[in-house]
Amino acid sequence: MSAEESTPKPGEFDLIRHLADAAGRYDNDVPRPAAVGIGDDAAVLDVDPGCQLVVTTDTLVAGVHFEADAAPGDIGYKALAVNLSDLAAMGATPAWHFLNLTGPPPDREWLGAFAAGMGELAGSEGTQLAGGDTTGGPMSVTVTALGQVPRGQALLRSTAQPGDRIVVSGMPGLAARALRWPERSPALEDAATTEAFRRLHRPRPRLALGRCLRGVAHACIDISDGLAADLGHILDASGLGAELWLDRLPDSPVFSGMTLESRWNLQLGGGDDYELCFTVPDAAGDLSALEEAAGVALTVIGRIRKGAGLDCIDADGAAFSPRTAGWDHFRSDPA
Amino acid sequence: MSAEESTPKPGEFDLIRHLADAAGRYDNDVPRPAAVGIGDDAAVLDVDPGCQLVVTTDTLVAGVHFEADAAPGDIGYKALAVNLSDLAAMGATPAWHFLNLTGPPPDREWLGAFAAGMGELAGSEGTQLAGGDTTGGPMSVTVTALGQVPRGQALLRSTAQPGDRIVVSGMPGLAARALRWPERSPALEDAATTEAFRRLHRPRPRLALGRCLRGVAHACIDISDGLAADLGHILDASGLGAELWLDRLPDSPVFSGMTLESRWNLQLGGGDDYELCFTVPDAAGDLSALEEAAGVALTVIGRIRKGAGLDCIDADGAAFSPRTAGWDHFRSDPA
Repeated sequence: MSAEESTPKPGEFDLIRHLADAAGRYDNDVPRPAAVGIGDDAAVLDVDPGCQLVVTTDTLVAGVHFEADAAPGDIGYKALAVNLSDLAAMGATPAWHFLNLTGPPPDREWLGAFAAGMGELAGSEGTQLAGGDTTGGPMSVTVTALGQVPRGQALLRSTAQPGDRIVVSGMPGLAARALRWPERSPALEDAATTEAFRRLHRPRPRLALGRCLRGVAHACIDISDGLAADLGHILDASGLGAELWLDRLPDSPVFSGMTLESRWNLQLGGGDDYELCFTVPDAAGDLSALEEAAGVALTVIGRIRKGAGLDCIDADGAAFSPRTAGWDHFRSDPA
Repeated sequence: MSAEESTPKPGEFDLIRHLADAAGRYDNDVPRPAAVGIGDDAAVLDVDPGCQLVVTTDTLVAGVHFEADAAPGDIGYKALAVNLSDLAAMGATPAWHFLNLTGPPPDREWLGAFAAGMGELAGSEGTQLAGGDTTGGPMSVTVTALGQVPRGQALLRSTAQPGDRIVVSGMPGLAARALRWPERSPALEDAATTEAFRRLHRPRPRLALGRCLRGVAHACIDISDGLAADLGHILDASGLGAELWLDRLPDSPVFSGMTLESRWNLQLGGGDDYELCFTVPDAAGDLSALEEAAGVALTVIGRIRKGAGLDCIDADGAAFSPRTAGWDHFRSDPA
């Protein structure tokens, strides 16, 4: 048997190499290439002096997180995006990622589009595909993302302070609105609707914002599970409570025609937003410079207080309980 | 809505925390605890000065790599073991691991046994569960393992040298023999058979050996795909060929009653062994001190040469072509 014949085709090695080659078309200028990348038993990586490593991993399952016949470029893009969003929430800069692709043997066209979708985001954020595996089975995609943060500067959930303003980036509820669109009316060809579908299928993680928040925000989280549930995680971890002002939630034309209650339920509980929710002291002053540096709108929506629990209050001071409580990871749809 | 109510139960956070607690019963003495572990958007880790990070990830799918009704403790143990085996092949010391568990909502008993199996190995090798996720869907387990190696000392596939001895640890073919046992005869209650089933269900990765091989071996790989295929990867990566002496392959009572050809096919192509195959120069001398330090038998089975291809030669000098060529990751059984 020659060594050439011993290489399984199509096998793990070829597929991951193919994905890396496709990704490589986008990332000619990776800031910190792997010392040993794809092709050995493991990757060897150099963490920058003075930095800590930040690691997160998420699995997307066909039929749960995406439809099996979804555009492969969107699947590749989003599988990386949801992980980079976690790095953004820690204030980390992405460096390397790993891909576990499970499914029926994919055809070249599907694989090329998948790789191009993931590669587009990887290239623009400077992260390199450094390893992974491929295996047969029901379709799912696991990405593990590794980033770096200057020592001691990671943004945590547990460090909110009483009196902090609560801030959310972008437009919470857009992805949830797009997800429910077919049930209600045909999608409109306007900018707001296009953006809603983009946030659902190709959410750009808020990495620039996360980096800008180092040393500025007290606590930070990404709102993948829904704004209320994720803000609740900050409150739990910090041992504090909060007031959320419903009339401060940013509005969008995509919510027109909805009752206020329906809109609040989408914006507080819809999930899949991949925006950041963070707390900042009043001493940090006006947020417009931060908005400009990060390239995303920021909205103050409430305030941290002593005690426990999240009180959502409308313009008349009446309490409102959102219908949803975030994403249950063993269900196929937001609860 | 109170913050307490916003926490989904049973959700990702609880399950991963439960798994960590179960694992924690075994690892009271983790060498390098995560700076920030489970419970935030990502883990924050300190890589030791002078060390490089070594990262590997593997997915095990129900019905492909294990039966869905397999003992949950074995699934948990093996999902970590196959990844630590890759770290062993790089000469790395494990430090942290991440778990993505996909499946139907597990009951407490299953989850407890799964966590105990993974925790037993994690505790004995000093690696800490630092994060992960849980999600609904067809059952699979992805583990990502992170280890450390002194800078520049990682063992690679690409650095074999002409004239190197080829060495294999332990008894290649044991797992493959156990896997095929039900087709042939009832399992015997002898030590060799017990060991074969242990290597199949709870393969102990050769981490001590990997560490001992730093600065000694020229090239190293773990033989998860089968000895011939994995040795072939060393030859490909190093641009060299090799001679493999079939009569030097270690023998075991579990192979009794098999033809030589059947035994060679199992030992060269069976896969799932998680032993190490490495190359050492003659100058490294006798291997008995290494055997003792690593706690595993070592057998010289061939020699690296210039050229290409792997020639398997029997005691009479006749060539033999193994029937199998390693594991095809899109099939459910060794090809």
